[in-house]
Amino acid sequence: MQNIHQRACRKIGKYLKIYSDIFNSRLLRETTVQRRKFTSSSPKMAPRNSPRNLRVLLDMDGVLADFEGQFLKNFREKYPQDPFVPLEDRSGFYVTKQYYALGQDIGTKAFGIYEEKGFFLSLQPIEGAIEAAREMADMEGVDVYICTSPIKKYTHCVVEKYQWLDKHLGKEWMERMILTRDKTVINGDLLIDDKPNITGGMSPPQWQHVLFTSWHNRDVTLQGGQVRLDGWLPHSGWRDILERKRQEINK
Amino acid sequence: MQNIHQRACRKIGKYLKIYSDIFNSRLLRETTVQRRKFTSSSPKMAPRNSPRNLRVLLDMDGVLADFEGQFLKNFREKYPQDPFVPLEDRSGFYVTKQYYALGQDIGTKAFGIYEEKGFFLSLQPIEGAIEAAREMADMEGVDVYICTSPIKKYTHCVVEKYQWLDKHLGKEWMERMILTRDKTVINGDLLIDDKPNITGGMSPPQWQHVLFTSWHNRDVTLQGGQVRLDGWLPHSGWRDILERKRQEINK
Repeated sequence: MQNIHQRACRKIGKYLKIYSDIFNSRLLRETTVQRRKFTSSSPKMAPRNSPRNLRVLLDMDGVLADFEGQFLKNFREKYPQDPFVPLEDRSGFYVTKQYYALGQDIGTKAFGIYEEKGFFLSLQPIEGAIEAAREMADMEGVDVYICTSPIKKYTHCVVEKYQWLDKHLGKEWMERMILTRDKTVINGDLLIDDKPNITGGMSPPQWQHVLFTSWHNRDVTLQGGQVRLDGWLPHSGWRDILERKRQEINK
Repeated sequence: MQNIHQRACRKIGKYLKIYSDIFNSRLLRETTVQRRKFTSSSPKMAPRNSPRNLRVLLDMDGVLADFEGQFLKNFREKYPQDPFVPLEDRSGFYVTKQYYALGQDIGTKAFGIYEEKGFFLSLQPIEGAIEAAREMADMEGVDVYICTSPIKKYTHCVVEKYQWLDKHLGKEWMERMILTRDKTVINGDLLIDDKPNITGGMSPPQWQHVLFTSWHNRDVTLQGGQVRLDGWLPHSGWRDILERKRQEINK
């Protein structure tokens, strides 16, 4: 029990130290701000409280790139005689799981569709995604990263994800690219992703999960601190979600 | 000035709240530990303080894979008449920069060496690296990730990095792989990397930088919280660095 008291006292002591640090740094910051007034050209964000940049992690498949639509198109073209799952009947994150339920061979065929050379590069951008990503990246005080998980048969997938970015957003977007099977260890404020349950080595993750609506997750109930984003069109409210979070991290 | 006082008082108030939380959670934890004594089979780590896992990020080139050695070998084989930089004369992180100093054409040739198909897959493991990585991954309370930056001409590099992992550590290591040009946003406790200055979107990063000794960084002075690791052989002390950090994050 004595330990607990000691620990609390140390904590309080530490924060009395921080109290003096705040005092000193505030003085320092005020000096800096005075200087900035004369050197910087009308920044969009007030430098007064030195807000830090909001880090937004954007998933690719199902958020920027239309994985589901291309998958169905290719499947129906390649196997016109086989049963398929219309987009409006999709449920569950893994499309192949639903196809396996139609038969072992159908599941295997489904896997083959997105393991094929060219599949990931051929994905069409989701409506408004490219414009939104560009606008976001241009926002002052916002850092955008692409945070995407390659499939296990990575042979074509990993390079095509880079090529897709090149093609639709430009070569310089490679600097923002993060390929990882575990997104929990990426240090963002928001992760915009269509996968409902994202788990990994870090629990809880640093980021808040923005569940991006896709055919397969329309009926999923939000959990924890999740919020939902229904698309990239102007009325979807993505800017509000970013703005709220930016205020939250800087308050 | 009054604001500063208010802020400090709020901080102290907050930590008085934490004080009571510590008290409550300690009681809760003690109950849990009691239960564990009868249910868990002799864990290597005492569960008493519920320590969290240490996250170690391992760079590939220059840490697991011998980039410098293979580069020089290929360069000399391909351009036997051209000047080159012996390993013991290497300085500066970017090998091509030093080759450009020998002539524009030499620099261009140097670039070509590691942009060639097969280069990244052909790299030899650094002595002891594979054994150390395996041992680390098997350690209780340690999570290992591979954290590596692809070169800008990513065509062969990205897929070969995955293939290299497959070949030397096994398919399941793909789950640990993080490809990123910005390592500062990866949430680790230690980053073992041979690049002396690692900057990016997050400053300071979450991790402590363990500078892995390479020909090009032997004479670099450590800065900030950096520590140095001279190799993967038993006497190099990598286990001590991990153990110290694990204690630090759980104290």
